[in-house]
Formats: sequence, structure tokens, C-alpha cells
Amino acid sequence: MQALIVHCHPEPTSFNATLKDVAEATLSKLGYGVTVSDLYAEGFDPVEDAKHYRDRLDPEFFSTLAEQRHASMRGSLPEEIRREIARLEQAELVVFQFPIWWHAQPAMLKGWFDRVFVNGGLYSSTMRYDRGRFRGKRALCCVTTGAPEAAFGPRSRGGDIAQILWPAQFSLYYTGFAVLPPFIAYGIQGHGFAYQADDLFQRQLDDYKTRWARRLEQLDQDEPLPFPGWEDWDECGRALPRAEAG
Amino acid sequence: MQALIVHCHPEPTSFNATLKDVAEATLSKLGYGVTVSDLYAEGFDPVEDAKHYRDRLDPEFFSTLAEQRHASMRGSLPEEIRREIARLEQAELVVFQFPIWWHAQPAMLKGWFDRVFVNGGLYSSTMRYDRGRFRGKRALCCVTTGAPEAAFGPRSRGGDIAQILWPAQFSLYYTGFAVLPPFIAYGIQGHGFAYQADDLFQRQLDDYKTRWARRLEQLDQDEPLPFPGWEDWDECGRALPRAEAG
Repeated sequence: MQALIVHCHPEPTSFNATLKDVAEATLSKLGYGVTVSDLYAEGFDPVEDAKHYRDRLDPEFFSTLAEQRHASMRGSLPEEIRREIARLEQAELVVFQFPIWWHAQPAMLKGWFDRVFVNGGLYSSTMRYDRGRFRGKRALCCVTTGAPEAAFGPRSRGGDIAQILWPAQFSLYYTGFAVLPPFIAYGIQGHGFAYQADDLFQRQLDDYKTRWARRLEQLDQDEPLPFPGWEDWDECGRALPRAEAG
Repeated sequence: MQALIVHCHPEPTSFNATLKDVAEATLSKLGYGVTVSDLYAEGFDPVEDAKHYRDRLDPEFFSTLAEQRHASMRGSLPEEIRREIARLEQAELVVFQFPIWWHAQPAMLKGWFDRVFVNGGLYSSTMRYDRGRFRGKRALCCVTTGAPEAAFGPRSRGGDIAQILWPAQFSLYYTGFAVLPPFIAYGIQGHGFAYQADDLFQRQLDDYKTRWARRLEQLDQDEPLPFPGWEDWDECGRALPRAEAG
């Protein structure tokens, strides 16, 4: 069994890094071979751009999807992209560790989606969603928020966590992953931003570490998040009327 | 009247660039002084990281929010961030031009949010949402999608556009902007990915250009998107029960 942890935080001693370490240790103990993509430490370039494509389909006009497809077929994808794809291919489980910044992944991780999930290679018009390349693999997001839990929910001040994570999680499902419910550590603040006394805060961090390890030990009990699939759409992609319960 | 266009696309002759040009010409004609932040052309660095902060509050631990606040107060924010903030401050209207990549902004633009919307400078715990710094200014997103319009909607194959744009639009509202409904050009494909014959596609592009110019000429008729505000939350940020209609 192989697991990949895609870790995204600029501070090597952050609580995100601690949660990444907890996942690495717990999954190793469970028998996984664990690989970590530490995007900041590896200096991943999140900007999809013409400069990454030397063997161009069209040197005059940079179409991201066309050049991704072309480079996939010719085996000329950038080295760091081929490395990330190889890591995904060998993993049965992929954990994404990141802080919520502006209601989404940090740019560093957003660019990992933009550049690694290449057209032609990892998906096509017919190889997507519940017919996706990574069908049979599981993914889950482990995230931290700055604000406390009370602020999150529909119409609440911090927004609804399901809405915040929807773009990342739907993108994972797009490539075929079964996306397990996220693990969320709320109210995680860097130095100088604590909402509470230091000892209470430390107890909260320890509690999250324990709960995250326990969650990983019990992943087989998780049901994937429900997303619509090919059976739910007409040929144009419109949602079909849903069968009513009862 | 001043307008800022934040433009994010790697190809200078893309349809996104055309829509940016339409906005620039139309707003100029309407009497705006128009500034363009062309993120790819200017080589904006979207990665928030310790390396941008020379005058550190804490050289041992990089806390994004604490260092942003510290640098804001000391006037030591990076030059490109001060430039973007100055552009925002002088603009009454801000247009964001970008393609939807993986159900969100491209990493380049996501990082503009991560780095430019600095803690302490552009917001604080009490200076947010309908008490935000940019109250009285208007913002709107002009976006392109790859898939045709039919694929977008709740539970549809492309996802719900409101859900796709929620993180970016709620982040704009967070800093105080009145966010106008987005303008969406569907089914925009780079070379080699057209869904239809070239002449039909060209007619569709011309139609979007006309509609975008007309939309900008009639912005005063737009109602901002409705977001909850301070009156809708308790002191912890929880949504208060809503008064029922009737």
C-alpha cells in the first residue's frame, strides 16, 4: 500500500507541518509506504505558463489544454510534473495538507492542480468523474482554518466549509478519486494571533493531533463524499431530474 | 472615476486578453481612467512566502498574517504589493478577468489574493465584510469557461458557477467590495479544442464582446450579489435565524 501526502505550508514548523508528520507516522505504522510532496520545500512552481513547454504544438498561441495534451502524448512534460504524476500513480491514498487562505487552497497548491492534472494524461472528455483515471484511489483534505469553528457554516461569517472546499474536492473527484470527508482543525493561528490562552491552545493542538491519527486509523469506515456522476447527466452535462424519495 | 482591471491569462492573444481590451476601451469611453494589472506580463509572484519579508516580526517562525500586519504597519511591504494596493485604493471599480481553471482562479490570481489582501493593511477583525476597507467600491469578475453553458448548474457536469466563483467573490466582499454579478463567456477553447465550426465559434466570440461592452455601459443598473453581513451574525460569527418572509 502506498500513500502520498501533498503538503503545502511555507513554515516548516507550522501546525500544518505537524499534522503532515502525524499523517506520515500514522500511515507508516499502518503499513503504508509514504511519499511526501512538500511543495514549498521542493520549490514547486505553481504558475502554468508557456515557458514550461519546449516542444510546442503551436509556438504562436499558448493553449494550456492543447499543450498539456501534446506534451503528455510526446512524453515531454516538465520533469517536476512527471514526478508528481508518478507519485499519484503509485499511491492508493492521497492526503492534501494545507491551510485555508482566502476561502481556498494557497496559490502554491492551486497551481499544483493547474499544472499536474494534465489534459490528455490524467483526464479526457470521456475519462472523468466516476470514469476518471484514478478510480479506486482515495483522497482526503486535512486543512486548518484561522477562525474558530463557530464562525463556519451556511451564511456564517467564515463561510460554509463544504463550499470552501468544494472546488478542490470536486477537482479531485474529476480525476476519479473517491474523496473522503475532510479533517478540519479550526482556530489555528500563527504566533501573535491566538484566540485563547497558550495552555488551552496547546491542549487544542494536542487534541487535533490525536483525532487526526485516530481518523487515519479508521479510514475504512469512511463513506466518500457524494458527487453526481455520468448517470446523473444528459449528453450535454445537464443534471437530470432526480428520482424523488418515497 | 478610476477603474482597475486585474488580468490573468498566460497567452497575450487569448480571448481573455480580448475581453480585457474590450473592458479597457469601454471604460475609457465611459470616462474612467483605466489601469491594468496584467499579472503574467508583469511577472507577479503568487507564492506567499517568508522571502518577501525582510523586516521580520519573528525571524524564527513565519506566520503569514503576523508578518503581513507587521510589514503593513512598518511600511515594509514588498514593492509589488504596495503597487497593487495603491491601484486598488485609487479605483472605484475593479474588474477581474480570468479563465476558470480547476473550478477556481488560476494560481497566479489566487496568489494575488493571498499576497495583496494583507492583514492589518486591507482588513482586520473589525474591518471586514460590510464594514470592510473598500466599502463603496464595486468589483466584478469576467470569466471564461472551457465547457459550454449547458454543463453548468447545480449538480451538472461542470458544477454550479455560483459555487465555482463563491471563494473569489466572497473574498472580494470580505474586503468591503460590493460584488456585481459575474459576466461569463462559456465554451471558450484555445486552438484545437473548439466545440463547433470555426465560423459559429467566431460569431459566438463577437457576441460575447458586444454583450460585455453593453454590460459595462449599464453597470449602474446592477444590484450587488447578496452576502450576509454583521447584522446577520452573533458575536461568534454564527448565522442568526433569518426572519421568515410573510
